[in-house]
Amino acid sequence: MQKELTIGKLLIGNPSDMSNIRYITGFSAPDAVIYLDTGTQRFLAVSPLEYGRAVSHTKSITVVSFEELKRSDKTRPTIIGLAVELIKRQHLNTVRVSADLPYLTAKKLLQAGIKIDVVEGPFLKQRAIKRPDEVARIREVQQAAVIACRAAVRKISSATIDGNGMLRDGTKRLDSESMRRLIDMVLLERDCVAEDTIVACGKQGAQPHERGSGPLMAGQPIVIDIFPRHKEHGYWGDLTRTVIKGRVSQELLNMYRAVKAAQRAALSAIKPRVHVRTVHRAAHREFNKRGYISELKNKAPHGFIHGTGHGVGLDIHEAPSVSNCKGVLRAGHVITVEPGLYYPELGGIRIEDTVVVMPDGWRYLYPCEKKFFIA
Amino acid sequence: MQKELTIGKLLIGNPSDMSNIRYITGFSAPDAVIYLDTGTQRFLAVSPLEYGRAVSHTKSITVVSFEELKRSDKTRPTIIGLAVELIKRQHLNTVRVSADLPYLTAKKLLQAGIKIDVVEGPFLKQRAIKRPDEVARIREVQQAAVIACRAAVRKISSATIDGNGMLRDGTKRLDSESMRRLIDMVLLERDCVAEDTIVACGKQGAQPHERGSGPLMAGQPIVIDIFPRHKEHGYWGDLTRTVIKGRVSQELLNMYRAVKAAQRAALSAIKPRVHVRTVHRAAHREFNKRGYISELKNKAPHGFIHGTGHGVGLDIHEAPSVSNCKGVLRAGHVITVEPGLYYPELGGIRIEDTVVVMPDGWRYLYPCEKKFFIA
Repeated sequence: MQKELTIGKLLIGNPSDMSNIRYITGFSAPDAVIYLDTGTQRFLAVSPLEYGRAVSHTKSITVVSFEELKRSDKTRPTIIGLAVELIKRQHLNTVRVSADLPYLTAKKLLQAGIKIDVVEGPFLKQRAIKRPDEVARIREVQQAAVIACRAAVRKISSATIDGNGMLRDGTKRLDSESMRRLIDMVLLERDCVAEDTIVACGKQGAQPHERGSGPLMAGQPIVIDIFPRHKEHGYWGDLTRTVIKGRVSQELLNMYRAVKAAQRAALSAIKPRVHVRTVHRAAHREFNKRGYISELKNKAPHGFIHGTGHGVGLDIHEAPSVSNCKGVLRAGHVITVEPGLYYPELGGIRIEDTVVVMPDGWRYLYPCEKKFFIA
Repeated sequence: MQKELTIGKLLIGNPSDMSNIRYITGFSAPDAVIYLDTGTQRFLAVSPLEYGRAVSHTKSITVVSFEELKRSDKTRPTIIGLAVELIKRQHLNTVRVSADLPYLTAKKLLQAGIKIDVVEGPFLKQRAIKRPDEVARIREVQQAAVIACRAAVRKISSATIDGNGMLRDGTKRLDSESMRRLIDMVLLERDCVAEDTIVACGKQGAQPHERGSGPLMAGQPIVIDIFPRHKEHGYWGDLTRTVIKGRVSQELLNMYRAVKAAQRAALSAIKPRVHVRTVHRAAHREFNKRGYISELKNKAPHGFIHGTGHGVGLDIHEAPSVSNCKGVLRAGHVITVEPGLYYPELGGIRIEDTVVVMPDGWRYLYPCEKKFFIA
C-alpha cells in the first residue's frame, strides 16, 4: 500500500477566508498558512509572526514555522515554494486539494513534480454533519438573529404612519438604513457581525438580494433577512421574517399565507434519509396548489425563484443544498428553510428559519414567532 | 491583429469576495457572476435572481441573464459552462484570468478549448492608484477608525486602577472584549464593520495578529488596531495606536519613542518615484540606530518583524506592499505606515496611519493624535 501512503491532503490559504482550514485546525489568521495531512501526521505551517499563536490555538497538529522550511539556497521563498518543501520532506508525491485551489498554485505544484487530485464538491464531507458543540454555536448566533429581528419588529410596531404612508418613529422617518443599523447593533452586543442585513420594503423585496434603502412604507411588505457571523468562533445563523404595517391587501395576505404554508410543508418533509429534492418539491407543490406559478417574464423571475434552503456552519452557504438537486438529509445537518414569493409589482415575502435535522425529524435552532401583520 | 482581438479578460466568482469584479462593475452580490471584457464590449452575466439589480447598479456594461446563455441541450449548466458559452459567443479563444482562478475552473475552460493566460500579481494594476472618489471613501472609513480609537482611549483614560493593577470603569473590569465591543459599536454607527479589531494588552501584543482577551492592565502597552470596512461601498481603513495607563517603565518609553521615530522616518521618505524598499529601510534604520535588532530567537520574532505597510482599498491588503520588495510609490497610492516593535517578555508597540501619496509627498487620510502615556 506504498502508493496510498504517499497521498496527502493539502490546503493553502488564509484561514479567515478558508473555513476548511479553520474547521480542521481551529486556527484562524489573516495570512496564508499551509495545512498538510499525510495520513499519519498533520502539519500546519505558518509565518514566524503566527507561530506562537498557532501553537497555542491548535492541538494534535505539528506546527511548523516557515523559517524551518526555508532552503538555504532560496532567500525569499513563496508560499507555494514552502508548501512544495513541506510535501517533499514528507515524501508525498500526490496531494488531494479542494476545488478552490488557485490554478497558479496548481501549476507550480505540478511543475515541482507533485501530482494533484482535485476534490469536486465539499472537501471535508464531515462538515455537513454538525457536532453538538457546533450546533450550540450556530444556535448562539441564531438566537442573536432572533433577538435583533424582534427589536426591528418592535420598532416597526411602535411606528406611526404619516400622511405620505411613511413609517415614523417620533419625528424621524424609519428607513432601511436606520433599521439595518438597529439590527446590526443588537447583533454586535452579542459579538455577531452582519455585513449584508436586508431590510427591503415593497418592490425592493422582489429582488431577493436587494439590501434595501430609503423609507419604509405602510401597506407594503418589509423583508428582514439577518445572517450574522460570530466574531470569535466564526459560525453563522440565518433568519428572515416579512412584516407589514398598516392596511394589508388581500393579495399580500394570501401570498403570506402561501409562504407560511410552503415553509410548513417543507419542514414537515424533513427527517433523515429524505432527499433534499423532496423537501424543495413540498414547498413548490404548496405554491402551485395555491396558484403561485414560478416563471421568468421579461427576464424577471416571478414566484418562488430560488432553492428552499442551504446548509449553515462556518460558511453561510454550505452543504447540503436544499433544492432541486441530489442529496439526502442526515441527522446533524443544519439547514435553512426559506421559501418565498417574489413579484416585481408587489415585492417579496420570505420566511426563513434555521433548523437541525434530528433522528426523528427536525428542531428549530432558535424559534421565532411568525407574524405578518403588525399593529 | 486578428489574434489580439480574440483575447478577453475573464473574472468568475462572488463579487462580495472578489474585489476585482466589484471594482470594475460597481456591482456586488453574494452569488457567482461572470465578467468578460472582449476589448470592445464588457459583459456581466448574472443569475435571473440578480438580473434586475445588476442592470440598475452598473453602467456601460451589457448585463446578461444566465437564462440567455443556457443552451437548449443542457438543462442545468454550471457557472463554468455558462462562462464557456459567453466566451464562445464572443468568438474569443483565449482569456486572461487572475491568479486566484480555481484550478478546477481552469481545467474545464481548457477542456472546452479555451486558452488561459494567468496574470501573476495584481490583475487590475489601476486599482493601486486611487481616484479622488476612492480616496474620499477610504478617508470616510479612516475617520470612523479614528473616532472609534478616540472613544477607546477616552475609556482607558477615565479608568481607575485597582489593587491588582487592573483597569476599571466604576465597578466593571475593562477587558479586551468590552473595549473591542465599544470600538465596533462606534464603527457601526458610521456604517463600518470590523471583524478582527485588536485590543491586546501586555505580552499578547507581542503577537501582531493576536486579537487580545482578558483584563487590561496598568503599566503594560495596549495595542489597539482598528481596520473597518464600509458596509455600503466596501472600502477599508486601517489605524493602530498603542497606549499605556499608569506607570511607564523607561524600557517601554524608549521602545515607544523608537516606533514613533521609525514611523516619522518612513513617512519622511514617502513621495512619488521612491522605492517602497527605501521607505521600509528608513524605518529599519531608525530601529537599528537605537539598538533594536530584528531577529528570530527560539522561533519567536523579536524586534521589527513585519513590513512597514500595505496598500488599502477594496481589499485591506492590496498593492503596493511597503516592505523589502520591488516597487515604486506613485501619487494616488493609499498605504499604511505601521512600524512596530515586539518582544515576547514585554509585548508590542505599533503605530499605524493610512496616508495617500501626493505629488509633493504624502498626506494623512485622517490624522489622529499619537499619545502613548495616558493619565
